[in-house]
Amino acid sequence: MTKARVANERSAPVPDAVELIVRKRDQGRLEPAELKHLVEGYTAGRVADYQMSAWLMASLLNGLDESETVALTDAMLHSGRVLELGSVHQPKVDKHSTGGVGDKVSLCLGPLVASCGVAVPMVSGRGLGHTGGTLDKLEAIEGYDTRLDARRFERVVATVGVSIIGQTSELAPADKRIYALRDVTGTVESVPLIVASILSKKLAEGIDALLLDVKVGRGAFMKDLDSARLLGRTLVRVGRRFGKRVSAVLTDMEFPLGRTIGNALEVEEAIDVLRNEGPDDTRELTLDLGARMLVLGGAESGLAAARRRVERTLASGEALECFARMVRAHGGNTRVIEHPEMLPKAPVRVAVPAPRSGFLVRCDALELGLVAVRLGAGRLLAEDAVDPAAGIELAIKPGDRVAKGQPMAWLCVRRRAAATPWLARAAAAFTLGPRPPPARPLVLENIAR
Amino acid sequence: MTKARVANERSAPVPDAVELIVRKRDQGRLEPAELKHLVEGYTAGRVADYQMSAWLMASLLNGLDESETVALTDAMLHSGRVLELGSVHQPKVDKHSTGGVGDKVSLCLGPLVASCGVAVPMVSGRGLGHTGGTLDKLEAIEGYDTRLDARRFERVVATVGVSIIGQTSELAPADKRIYALRDVTGTVESVPLIVASILSKKLAEGIDALLLDVKVGRGAFMKDLDSARLLGRTLVRVGRRFGKRVSAVLTDMEFPLGRTIGNALEVEEAIDVLRNEGPDDTRELTLDLGARMLVLGGAESGLAAARRRVERTLASGEALECFARMVRAHGGNTRVIEHPEMLPKAPVRVAVPAPRSGFLVRCDALELGLVAVRLGAGRLLAEDAVDPAAGIELAIKPGDRVAKGQPMAWLCVRRRAAATPWLARAAAAFTLGPRPPPARPLVLENIAR
Repeated sequence: MTKARVANERSAPVPDAVELIVRKRDQGRLEPAELKHLVEGYTAGRVADYQMSAWLMASLLNGLDESETVALTDAMLHSGRVLELGSVHQPKVDKHSTGGVGDKVSLCLGPLVASCGVAVPMVSGRGLGHTGGTLDKLEAIEGYDTRLDARRFERVVATVGVSIIGQTSELAPADKRIYALRDVTGTVESVPLIVASILSKKLAEGIDALLLDVKVGRGAFMKDLDSARLLGRTLVRVGRRFGKRVSAVLTDMEFPLGRTIGNALEVEEAIDVLRNEGPDDTRELTLDLGARMLVLGGAESGLAAARRRVERTLASGEALECFARMVRAHGGNTRVIEHPEMLPKAPVRVAVPAPRSGFLVRCDALELGLVAVRLGAGRLLAEDAVDPAAGIELAIKPGDRVAKGQPMAWLCVRRRAAATPWLARAAAAFTLGPRPPPARPLVLENIAR
Repeated sequence: MTKARVANERSAPVPDAVELIVRKRDQGRLEPAELKHLVEGYTAGRVADYQMSAWLMASLLNGLDESETVALTDAMLHSGRVLELGSVHQPKVDKHSTGGVGDKVSLCLGPLVASCGVAVPMVSGRGLGHTGGTLDKLEAIEGYDTRLDARRFERVVATVGVSIIGQTSELAPADKRIYALRDVTGTVESVPLIVASILSKKLAEGIDALLLDVKVGRGAFMKDLDSARLLGRTLVRVGRRFGKRVSAVLTDMEFPLGRTIGNALEVEEAIDVLRNEGPDDTRELTLDLGARMLVLGGAESGLAAARRRVERTLASGEALECFARMVRAHGGNTRVIEHPEMLPKAPVRVAVPAPRSGFLVRCDALELGLVAVRLGAGRLLAEDAVDPAAGIELAIKPGDRVAKGQPMAWLCVRRRAAATPWLARAAAAFTLGPRPPPARPLVLENIAR
């Protein structure tokens, strides 16, 4: 250790970075003031990228305990502005999902919950890897501006009840930089680092409560229940240390959610749900999470009553109305809500035929997410543009029967040639069997502690 | 792992870096071609500093096995030129020390071994932390140029038998960059990384054999025998995988070596040794290592005969002659050899008085090394200049008796004020006791396998 300590004495520009790296490397603990110093130093450029990445790797391998995770979250949260939303008089509740395939729930859920009197200030992300991003979906709506500044964001939340924007440079800028660094240094898969990233962003929104939708399965970042449970519990415990009401649900992401993967396709499905229609699973997850958010926001005291309330509100058309007001407040063309055919549409739909007759037993969310990205629905490079029209429409859901040669899905592309290389991979994502599979619950577990 | 794998798919400029980081993070092995790819990518700028530092931290914590260490060494070795020294017809043997306080042995050893017919092509380093560096010492000699290019280096080795230069940008450039990165990212203390760094540099010199002097104790980077033994054994095993004759000795670095710490002071002591005088310990270590190098080089078949040979050669004055020829070949002023008083001399010598009478029991090499750095003999910042005249002269060695108020050492400085702040710390490095301490062996262990 001496050499590093001495090296540190010699390197005036980063007075403590090496010492803090070495401490974590040697399984020591960092004090809150030290974590603040590290994060502030990194944000200010006094701690170099290569020092932060070494510290992140040491933290991933040696762990951060709960109080370190709280302090790291706090330091990242206070690296930028923390909104107050003083002009929003309703309770403020947000939802965060850890990312899935076909998960367009935020688009339905925000307006639904807002229509029930609970404000939803939501800072969302873009597609990452094989998963979709709420911002990319909203931008499939002509004119929708995801880049409101804090003042306009607050005004939309106060007047409409819900606003969905992207992470601005004002909110948790340290998270933005650290996340980008983790993405290219193999330091993503750490529960404490994931928790600090999610919570620092979300707590900066000025919320009173937060619902976490931790996805589990092939299409999720957490592949098994144990790791999802650990993440959910840590999120809940750390979030509560900030005086917020926080709970988490583990939900199934073995198969894609709903019938569509791809930005405009998913907006159309979300509008269907807001019309009180749409696929059962998307609709069910919207209602379930909505009811939980009402309870978290104190708008209902019991889950059963909250469930009846969101069902009623969805049926009434108020949620769809609220969605239209949000789109209008963001400069978006609301005519697409009446006329979803005005959304960007792929001119070519290439069928993925069933190789034989049978029941759909498995439908691999990871593989279909990766194919959708290659069709243009997501990004291979951070600087790529997404094609809002591209994606996959599922013709069958698990349990459905399909005859040989009938489509299992359609690949939606600008030119047939864009689909051809991916047809076999898409087909291989579907497993047909002689019997329908046992029904799978969508919400696997509720984490309240 | 999925997220990182996906991120990797998205980041074209560094196609495999994330995958290799994640593999080592997850305790996997890297193939030789992969390590070569990583090191080449880093040298060429395709792998970023922040990716290399994350990989280094993962490697430090999860380890590299012997074949990975060999492959890393090989990749670093071949990141630059590997000298052939075809015009040098003697056997070529070098010595590397892991760094100590007052260790001026290279200055005496190179000329001594060369005088016995074994060529010594030596690429040395500068002071690091509390330890001194051979280059800084040689540069205390007016005109001595440590920056010969490969061609001139070879010519000096061929004609004089020994040349001591600094690491050029031609030799193992990957090591130079990786070492600088490790220094500021808390990734120095890893046996495989240390081994790859030492051997890639040394093997680039075109040597046939290498003797490693692994220092153990307070003033060394390895504080205990176990860790020194592990380092020594790994160096020997990995070095031999390159077809070289390699052995290692563990030597004591609890106390400073000899009577001087500081550049010009140590040159003067080295000249004393070359005159067949000088302190017992510096002289003994020179003779012991010299004998081992003759055996490694095949100039003598047994250690006893080799020992007689180096003793005879030292007594004959040939080694001093050879030192003078090396200094001349490097453009240095050889008059200092006859007239050491012409070396840079500190105008002020501030005594460190004994607080009471007694025998010197302990003399803390680390603390005295750190004080010497602060007096100007070493660097606090990489860009600092060293003061060749500054340093510490010891008045007593362990076992010597001192009367209260008599000097234990002198701090050699330009102005008295430069010494004052360090007097108490220097005094505290000496421990006096009622009896002389038991004698300590200088060479603790020989590692031949």
